[in-house]
Amino acid sequence: MAKPRKTPRPRAETPKGFRDYFGAEVTERAAMLDKIVGVYHRYGFDALESSAVETVEALGKFLPDVDRPGGGVFAWQDEDEKWLALRYDLTAPLARVYAQHRNDLPTPYRRYAVGPVWRNEKPGPGRFRQFYQCDADTVGTSSMAADAEICAMLADTLEAVGIERGDYVVRVNNRKVLNGVLEAVGAIKAPPNGKPSMDNFVAAGDLDNELAAQVLRTIDKFDKVGESGVRELLTTGRKDASGAFIDGVGLSQNQSEIILRFLTAKNNIQSEDDIRLNLTESDFKTDPSSVNGATLSALIELVEGSEIGLSGLRELDEIADLLDAQGYGPDRIVIDPSVVRGLGYYTGPVFEAELTFEILDEKGRPRQFGSVAGGGRYDDLVKRFTGQAVPATGVSIGVDRLLAALREKGRTGGEAQGPVVVTVMDRTRMADYQAMVGDLRRAGIRAEVYLGNPKNFGNQMKYADRRGSPVAIIAGEDEFARDVVQIKDLILGAQIAENATLEEWKERPSQIEVPRAQLVESVREILSRQG
Amino acid sequence: MAKPRKTPRPRAETPKGFRDYFGAEVTERAAMLDKIVGVYHRYGFDALESSAVETVEALGKFLPDVDRPGGGVFAWQDEDEKWLALRYDLTAPLARVYAQHRNDLPTPYRRYAVGPVWRNEKPGPGRFRQFYQCDADTVGTSSMAADAEICAMLADTLEAVGIERGDYVVRVNNRKVLNGVLEAVGAIKAPPNGKPSMDNFVAAGDLDNELAAQVLRTIDKFDKVGESGVRELLTTGRKDASGAFIDGVGLSQNQSEIILRFLTAKNNIQSEDDIRLNLTESDFKTDPSSVNGATLSALIELVEGSEIGLSGLRELDEIADLLDAQGYGPDRIVIDPSVVRGLGYYTGPVFEAELTFEILDEKGRPRQFGSVAGGGRYDDLVKRFTGQAVPATGVSIGVDRLLAALREKGRTGGEAQGPVVVTVMDRTRMADYQAMVGDLRRAGIRAEVYLGNPKNFGNQMKYADRRGSPVAIIAGEDEFARDVVQIKDLILGAQIAENATLEEWKERPSQIEVPRAQLVESVREILSRQG
Repeated sequence: MAKPRKTPRPRAETPKGFRDYFGAEVTERAAMLDKIVGVYHRYGFDALESSAVETVEALGKFLPDVDRPGGGVFAWQDEDEKWLALRYDLTAPLARVYAQHRNDLPTPYRRYAVGPVWRNEKPGPGRFRQFYQCDADTVGTSSMAADAEICAMLADTLEAVGIERGDYVVRVNNRKVLNGVLEAVGAIKAPPNGKPSMDNFVAAGDLDNELAAQVLRTIDKFDKVGESGVRELLTTGRKDASGAFIDGVGLSQNQSEIILRFLTAKNNIQSEDDIRLNLTESDFKTDPSSVNGATLSALIELVEGSEIGLSGLRELDEIADLLDAQGYGPDRIVIDPSVVRGLGYYTGPVFEAELTFEILDEKGRPRQFGSVAGGGRYDDLVKRFTGQAVPATGVSIGVDRLLAALREKGRTGGEAQGPVVVTVMDRTRMADYQAMVGDLRRAGIRAEVYLGNPKNFGNQMKYADRRGSPVAIIAGEDEFARDVVQIKDLILGAQIAENATLEEWKERPSQIEVPRAQLVESVREILSRQG
Repeated sequence: MAKPRKTPRPRAETPKGFRDYFGAEVTERAAMLDKIVGVYHRYGFDALESSAVETVEALGKFLPDVDRPGGGVFAWQDEDEKWLALRYDLTAPLARVYAQHRNDLPTPYRRYAVGPVWRNEKPGPGRFRQFYQCDADTVGTSSMAADAEICAMLADTLEAVGIERGDYVVRVNNRKVLNGVLEAVGAIKAPPNGKPSMDNFVAAGDLDNELAAQVLRTIDKFDKVGESGVRELLTTGRKDASGAFIDGVGLSQNQSEIILRFLTAKNNIQSEDDIRLNLTESDFKTDPSSVNGATLSALIELVEGSEIGLSGLRELDEIADLLDAQGYGPDRIVIDPSVVRGLGYYTGPVFEAELTFEILDEKGRPRQFGSVAGGGRYDDLVKRFTGQAVPATGVSIGVDRLLAALREKGRTGGEAQGPVVVTVMDRTRMADYQAMVGDLRRAGIRAEVYLGNPKNFGNQMKYADRRGSPVAIIAGEDEFARDVVQIKDLILGAQIAENATLEEWKERPSQIEVPRAQLVESVREILSRQG
């Protein structure tokens, strides 16, 4: 008779692309999110927590990754054959929530949301399949004041979490201006009735205008291949780094030049010295002698004759004017058409928050920290459900990126404070040790009794070390008899262990004896001395 | 030619059994969890956030719902054919995390975790397929001090969130004592070498002793069918409410009587008057004249001759002694063998926190609020992965139940504070309105400009009402000319609207005019007056 085969042991591992977060990784993120949510709340946004699971039908094909439409989510079939999936962002669920509850929600509806999202994508270094997003959106208004406010709130948020003014910039672009440029160069047709409308243009998930889609995909590579690379790709094509030839979109040199002038309209205006006074639209409010005014001036020429382009410029003008009135100058928020990320997804204004300080990359070369948040206007997301277009605009913060930036700047992190560890010299005295931690905890001091096997005292000190404990308490038979405790300053002890002479070491100044009744007071004093 | 069929609109709805949480539902829960985590942290527990997705292999079949082993999770197949699933609790992932990272973690490892879990179960009223858990566990120690500490922490936690002493009780039982009772009545065999061990007994997910499993399932109905019901079910069987006959387990009257004496050992000791002085085990520490001592006395008779039963009693004795020394009397934490929930799952001590105040059920009848947290010792969970038994104990708080209890007691909730709404009388003045909210926000006051279509002023006031706004700001051409604003106290306004005479109404004392420069000060004063 064959022996029954044993079930093999399960492997203790996270699924590929997932990870665990320990201690300070969790608490520092929570502290940062608390600050962000505090700003959102003060701006009048209400909390929303939608379910992590949605019907695939409700999520639709709005994944930002246009190259993999329909894919990218974790999905399964319910017992009644319905396909369910984990949300891949917080925007698609917002559209569903708004469509479902719109009669009970105020209009406009301003909500923030924080939570994990899941992407069924190839994981890579620092790229996980579960990560946090933190969004704020205003649904139900087409007013540019909503977009301007989101930009201002984004700047306030970055400062609230500890990014100093000068270390970030919120850049604003507008999809309609790009469409205007494409129309002006004849790459796409103007709408038949001449009325500005997005209907003739490519929208997220609906790339029916193949040429415009190609232009979008090409300028999306601006950050990677630069000005000359985009020029080649828009026209006759280009050899990439591997030597492979990438076909061009087939625009003329003239057409591609105008698109490049759009992308670089801000780049030529670095300071007020570069400003030429030629803002011509009489109804524009932005001061033509300002940085934003100069950028708008440069753009007006490029969208000549395009109603939609002009309407996009008017939106930028309105945003710039509102922000200017509130004191958000171009050092904090600036119109910049080189923001191309998201142009394919959004339908109007597009924003991106970039951190401008330098860090060293893996190879030790300095580079700008880069983008930590993005957003824009997406007027068609709710329409899928209700048939009615509902204007909406919002922003999403890349939580892990921003947290990494704060660590980079020393604004969070460092050593997490471990608990005071009360060691166990005499296991029949457990109740006395518990009474000590009880006293410490009631005084608000993080503390615990060592709960492992107390036989080996060295293990207890190793444990305290591993926990990052600032202080250890020691009391054995002798101490109980005399009603005292030994208090060991572990931070000072570690410094001494590193630098001290044998003499200094012997004196053990890092350990003091105090009456049991002074335990809390003495620990508190050592902790405050450690800072 | 057939017309191309339009894709039908997706339905805007959460999947069955899922829901959305709005505004105060989110923030009140977050505030409560903050307080809980604060206590956990002070007790020395470290944060852990494991991924929501686990391999099915790692999750195993540890679902507490023993009637549906293997089912109950949302699972799907990865592209490399691996089965993944959403975690159904926070304990199974902890076992995986500990097995995976044990070389980098301190021993004992004390961790807390907060987050959603998912159950693929039939949803019902108030029963959702995604809900929060908040756990604390100590892995790697068999010391009863760890269990005692979890009980003390649970009591502290309940008081920290606002449950008053006297309104809760943490009840403690022990699985080994039940096994001892079963052994004493001859329902299960003693281990061959006489050494106390769990190996001969039913453990979670491993119900190899059918009789013991049946007894467990039966006493689990204690809360539902009462003493006499359990007696019938343990012996010859019972007609249930529908008239159907439920077969009995087949124990003798004598056997069932002893099991019932175990279950009710505490019930006969309501106060110190009921105590008979007969705690006989000479090494027990608990004062025999105390409530816990009396319960232990009653149990000693029932486990006579069973080593495992006695070892379970020694554990309870140690817990009681430690808690007593720290001042947690039986008014807060008490040994009570009628705690049967979890006895099938855990391997040693079992705890349950019950709220003892009365609420009215759906039919208006008073009943105790009931259980809000439970836990116990589970020594075999990590063994699945490593082959080595790792002792562990912990507690899980039912977040939604506890939040409901706080609302019931008026400790949280009430009206959520909406933002101050700055109305828009003149849309060319948007920058001025934005400046007003800017001033208010900088003063820490939640505020926003109305961003909907400002044409209909009534809609703006309706919006403020729907947001629960305490104050509305009004400024039109006239106000700007005179550099003043109108401030409307909406709370007072609502009171007047309900009760005022026409004369009072006309006087509109709820609206005041102040210089623009005094906006912030005046709003702050009204808010503080509103409380």
